[in-house]
Amino acid sequence: MATAAVKATDSRQRFIDAAIGLFTRHSFAGTSLQMIADELGVTKSAVHHHFRSREELLTSVVEPMITQLRTTIETAEAIRGQHARADRLLTGFVDLVVHHKSLMSVLVSDPGVTEILRTHPVLSGLIQRQTKILADVEPGDGGQIRASVALRGIAGTARSDALNVDDDTLRQHLLEAGRRTLGLRAPRRAH
Amino acid sequence: MATAAVKATDSRQRFIDAAIGLFTRHSFAGTSLQMIADELGVTKSAVHHHFRSREELLTSVVEPMITQLRTTIETAEAIRGQHARADRLLTGFVDLVVHHKSLMSVLVSDPGVTEILRTHPVLSGLIQRQTKILADVEPGDGGQIRASVALRGIAGTARSDALNVDDDTLRQHLLEAGRRTLGLRAPRRAH
Repeated sequence: MATAAVKATDSRQRFIDAAIGLFTRHSFAGTSLQMIADELGVTKSAVHHHFRSREELLTSVVEPMITQLRTTIETAEAIRGQHARADRLLTGFVDLVVHHKSLMSVLVSDPGVTEILRTHPVLSGLIQRQTKILADVEPGDGGQIRASVALRGIAGTARSDALNVDDDTLRQHLLEAGRRTLGLRAPRRAH
Repeated sequence: MATAAVKATDSRQRFIDAAIGLFTRHSFAGTSLQMIADELGVTKSAVHHHFRSREELLTSVVEPMITQLRTTIETAEAIRGQHARADRLLTGFVDLVVHHKSLMSVLVSDPGVTEILRTHPVLSGLIQRQTKILADVEPGDGGQIRASVALRGIAGTARSDALNVDDDTLRQHLLEAGRRTLGLRAPRRAH
């Protein structure tokens, strides 16, 4: 990569990191591009050079999560066997929500964010594919409802601040809870 | 009850019903006391006679849900045996969220409502007692996390409009999902 491109990527990431910090402290609704400029000691037009609007910045903030979700779904979909496929999806989903729990907590409490994500061009399709992988474990309404309880329960628990446990403990118990809800047995370990 | 008292109760309930309809169509944030007056063809001061503010009206709207939650918790707490107690709580919670699913869907998507409920004088205590009954099924972090996954998963699924099932089907599968998550067996029927 040319030096100029490296620099552009670096400064773009600095804006994203500053935005996440400000969203956490002031919510998405309470954060302006001017505040991001002030935080980094640059002009507002420097921020505008990378992000034309707060919405565009938000998309950049959630893009890594969406990429991780897509990878998880594609990895799972490539596996033969409904139970193994569902278990792979569940494991990846738990990793994702635990890894991004603070950011998710900030974002879902923000009605402006919820609306932007609801109309995101690829996110709703990914969520449908993800739900289908889990719902396929059991045909009919029961499978649909269990998939929804598992996904919503895991995401809601990961981003709540009611629990005082480390990430590994959280990940392990969320995975176990999801497997129980869906009726999946923990896979035997490979030798 | 004296006739005047009956009338006062009736008109109070009319305001509450009108408010629920308006909250559903326009959100809590988008509903004013004036809109409620217009809906019922009365003056704003007639609304003020019963409810001094939108916040007071909201409290009246959610009060039946909170009363139902308290009854469910007290009934469960009176039962000896952790599993039977948890199963009673779970059954009552599923009934509650399915019965009030439309109103819950409106309320949780409204940040003003979320803030008012978060600081409700008794609600947070009830939610703690409810979680404890389920978490007690299994000691430690695992029990806490499974209780949270079950409660959040059930509430989130009931109020989502992604599922196209009747209330009895929804209730039955939510209960089954919750029992699995918590490791409860369905109780044997009495003869």
